Amino acid sequence: MGFLFFASRAAARLAEGIARPGVSTAALLLTAASGGGLVAYADSATESAPVSSQDARKKKVLVLGTGWAGTSFLRNLDCSRYEVKVVSPRNYFAFTPLLPSVTCGTVEPRSIIEPIRRMFEKKSKAVTFYEAECFKIDASNKTVHCRSAVGTNFDGNGDFMLEYDYLVVALGATVNTFNTPGVMEYCNFLKEVEDAQKIRRSVLDCFEKASLPNVSEEEKRKTLHFVIIGGGPTGVEFAAELHDFIVEDLVKLYPAVQEFVKITIIQSGEHILNMFDKRITAFAEEKFQRDGIEVCTGFRVVKVSDDLITMKSKTAVEVSVPYGMAVWSAGIGTRPVIMDFMHQIGQANRRALATNEWLRVRECDSIYAIGDCATVNQRKIMDDISMIFKMADKDHSGTLTLKEIRDVLEDIFIRYPQVELYMKNMHMLDVEDLIKGAIGDSHKDSMVIDIEEFKKALCHVDSQVKNAPATAQVAAQQGSYLADCFNKMEECKQHPEGPLRMTGESGRHFFRPFRYKHLGQFAPLGGEQTAAELPGDWISMGHSTQWLWYSVYASKQVSWRTRMLVVSDWTRRFIFGRDSSRL
Amino acid sequence: MGFLFFASRAAARLAEGIARPGVSTAALLLTAASGGGLVAYADSATESAPVSSQDARKKKVLVLGTGWAGTSFLRNLDCSRYEVKVVSPRNYFAFTPLLPSVTCGTVEPRSIIEPIRRMFEKKSKAVTFYEAECFKIDASNKTVHCRSAVGTNFDGNGDFMLEYDYLVVALGATVNTFNTPGVMEYCNFLKEVEDAQKIRRSVLDCFEKASLPNVSEEEKRKTLHFVIIGGGPTGVEFAAELHDFIVEDLVKLYPAVQEFVKITIIQSGEHILNMFDKRITAFAEEKFQRDGIEVCTGFRVVKVSDDLITMKSKTAVEVSVPYGMAVWSAGIGTRPVIMDFMHQIGQANRRALATNEWLRVRECDSIYAIGDCATVNQRKIMDDISMIFKMADKDHSGTLTLKEIRDVLEDIFIRYPQVELYMKNMHMLDVEDLIKGAIGDSHKDSMVIDIEEFKKALCHVDSQVKNAPATAQVAAQQGSYLADCFNKMEECKQHPEGPLRMTGESGRHFFRPFRYKHLGQFAPLGGEQTAAELPGDWISMGHSTQWLWYSVYASKQVSWRTRMLVVSDWTRRFIFGRDSSRL
Repeated sequence: MGFLFFASRAAARLAEGIARPGVSTAALLLTAASGGGLVAYADSATESAPVSSQDARKKKVLVLGTGWAGTSFLRNLDCSRYEVKVVSPRNYFAFTPLLPSVTCGTVEPRSIIEPIRRMFEKKSKAVTFYEAECFKIDASNKTVHCRSAVGTNFDGNGDFMLEYDYLVVALGATVNTFNTPGVMEYCNFLKEVEDAQKIRRSVLDCFEKASLPNVSEEEKRKTLHFVIIGGGPTGVEFAAELHDFIVEDLVKLYPAVQEFVKITIIQSGEHILNMFDKRITAFAEEKFQRDGIEVCTGFRVVKVSDDLITMKSKTAVEVSVPYGMAVWSAGIGTRPVIMDFMHQIGQANRRALATNEWLRVRECDSIYAIGDCATVNQRKIMDDISMIFKMADKDHSGTLTLKEIRDVLEDIFIRYPQVELYMKNMHMLDVEDLIKGAIGDSHKDSMVIDIEEFKKALCHVDSQVKNAPATAQVAAQQGSYLADCFNKMEECKQHPEGPLRMTGESGRHFFRPFRYKHLGQFAPLGGEQTAAELPGDWISMGHSTQWLWYSVYASKQVSWRTRMLVVSDWTRRFIFGRDSSRL
Repeated sequence: MGFLFFASRAAARLAEGIARPGVSTAALLLTAASGGGLVAYADSATESAPVSSQDARKKKVLVLGTGWAGTSFLRNLDCSRYEVKVVSPRNYFAFTPLLPSVTCGTVEPRSIIEPIRRMFEKKSKAVTFYEAECFKIDASNKTVHCRSAVGTNFDGNGDFMLEYDYLVVALGATVNTFNTPGVMEYCNFLKEVEDAQKIRRSVLDCFEKASLPNVSEEEKRKTLHFVIIGGGPTGVEFAAELHDFIVEDLVKLYPAVQEFVKITIIQSGEHILNMFDKRITAFAEEKFQRDGIEVCTGFRVVKVSDDLITMKSKTAVEVSVPYGMAVWSAGIGTRPVIMDFMHQIGQANRRALATNEWLRVRECDSIYAIGDCATVNQRKIMDDISMIFKMADKDHSGTLTLKEIRDVLEDIFIRYPQVELYMKNMHMLDVEDLIKGAIGDSHKDSMVIDIEEFKKALCHVDSQVKNAPATAQVAAQQGSYLADCFNKMEECKQHPEGPLRMTGESGRHFFRPFRYKHLGQFAPLGGEQTAAELPGDWISMGHSTQWLWYSVYASKQVSWRTRMLVVSDWTRRFIFGRDSSRL
């Protein structure tokens, strides 16, 4: 579960002091603008509570979820401008990239979590937190229905309803079993802190079980076979952690069973870590081979029972292997509440909520979705090509000159980042090169193109549209971007900073669209070795990268408390090893 | 749960190096000696495996339990002399006196536990550990039946049987609900690390629950009413910890509900901490009154339901109070396996296994019991008075001179410690004073007494016989005493060091009987204040005692690892406060 940087530093500056009562709320009453940007909330006149002009009530912002996206949003939001409520079944934020370390006790679970209330107490943010799970979003009534995570023993059943003006959905994703039978019952997962704790107990259970008297060699071998399904960053990092735990700590404490231990990674693709550079994949596979971790590629798990994992190769060969403990990390799925909401708004049959480039849920005026529960649907340039042409053609000549194109190019780059990406990938330095591809080198000097030539020049550009991966890095950037938009809503209404509207209306979008900035990714491989993709297509592998990993992860902790705890956990591990108590 | 020192330092010196193969086992074949001491194992001739003189097999020592008693025994045992096996459902030792600190996150659970295997790996001790629960002791076949704590998925059900030559029962005690209805279902306990973790979650659940919308004031008041049943050291320390947690951490994070919080201690006696000096009790009650902790004395809880605790005063007034969370710490009970074993050996209707003064279970040749599952039955001097008289009367004159008494006085003191205790309590400096009480001052010079006068002199002595309390301190001392006996079995057979046998046989007991040395007890009262009974009837209270508490508890940790962790937890708490995440 590697990730490198995430942008969330603007928080502290914005958090305090900028409260301008009265003004802020009035400024929120923007006129509705379709097509993008932060869509304004214009129907306050219809509200039952009369709003006096000087004591205008603050808009209600309701945030669902306290993962990377929700927390990043809250940390960056200027809470004095809104009435902020947060609903989450967990009253803490978890630094999930360290979850694989928690599975083996390299880091303790409480070292990577920070109470939500504490994060905002320190910043004197007026945030109301409810420990509850949202089970229904009712977009038509602008309410959500929640259920307390704690069994109540009052008269009510713990259900309650909350109203919102703006809803920020940051509920994350769940595991995806691809309906493989037995996975839910018999596999461990690695999504929550509790999952990591459970894996830690299970690993020790296997060692204790294999150490009991009257256990045959075959049983020992089975019990100590640890299988990881999914060769992505999480699975690979867990395999590496487990291998370290066994080699550095457990073999000393359980010497009688050490020869029976085996770790296997099952990966349906041809290689593990296939989203990384090929050099990293090769490095990881070689290291695992030296370590004796079996990498079983090209196999898809089709069934899990209490003691067998059945998998199928591409040539339809079925193999069953006995196992002691299995971890499933083969993909992410949709939470039921998101699924239900998608049905309501006509987005059924999707994996995640579709938002526009300003992170607003399509079809919903005041609902935003960030993090793993959402995907940004980048608008294709070919869908808007005629409008763009018309807008750029200022003299209505029916043709575009190079100058006319250059005048709107900046806005096109912002609105359709795929154009810039395409040019970069094709090594085009200037828009001239792009146009040339369409009209040829012949009439170099009088470079004037009509709509057909314009279409031809841009027809391959949309192939560059890609979804951002479901990582903490993306979620954190989205949260902080959205908070930024909420913070500068008044300013941007007066002075829009977004690109020109190209789909009909005149004027500019209030905000620049969200743009993910990939800052690299780590893949820890165990034995104090890490591989990393750094910005600018740099690759780094080995011991020094491990130290880079330590420093980045320490610096990215959300509080000084967790930073101190994580660093002291690492120190403890160096001095005393990992704790093998089965707690 | 205060306790001060425990004697377990002899371990390191004895642990290594003294292995003398061949000799050690031969020396174990002592002749059976009834009446006390380590009873020898004399029937090796009847064993099926023939024992060759030079490769004699080591005796099997089986230890049940890894609490204070079992761990102290194992740490002090010279494991090279025996084949040592340990069975416990927990693969770690827990420093239970810090459990109340774990309930509120002052100390993390993993900071107070140390894996058993690790303790012995470091000392290169040949100990085999099985993570399993003993569910039956079969004394007649010298076997115990165990069940794996982990659900197995092999063919067997995880049950197995172990043979022993010596069995050390150190299974501890369970909670005692006194059959009060509802206690098991609705109360929390404080025996295991998991209990403390559960309490921590429950406290935070109550705060989160009370912070939900649509909760009436009455419900808030109920949810935030924390009730502790039992005013002993554990209950009082927990109340103090909880108060600190609320006042120092939670009120800042949950300001909206702080006015509804209440802590109540229910105590059936007239005072809390009634085993302590009256000054400590008064100090504690005053402090709790200032803190707003309600101490409800003279009430016995008769029923607990999901939202009400019903209690009865001595005048039979019944009161029911609504509550949010309850902790039951009102006494200890017997584990089912001990109950079953007591039935087998005719000790039914007792709370704990009765042992003699050498910690051997009465009626069982090779079974020892230590810790909370056992009580030492001190032999009454009046039961043996005729034999003692006969033995002391060396010239068979039918009377004892002062010199004859003085000759055996040392042995009497060792064998019947109540004599010394009685004399100390009655401020008698010499045995002369004791005799004088029986025969009067009249014939001072020719102090010669007959059997009736001897009986008269000693008739009140047995009133001083008291059971040691069920504390970690007692358990640890018993474990280390018993290990010491096991270690010097050969030497003591040659040169018995115990008192003269006074019940028939001639010669000396091999060992001195176990004698508990009370080294004092702490009662932490919160707010950096602690009360303590120190050796020599000293009383200490206040902030300085808290620092004494910190240093004693840090120094008594079983490993450098836990010591570092506990101290860094305390430091973390000082700097950052306690973690309020509901994990």
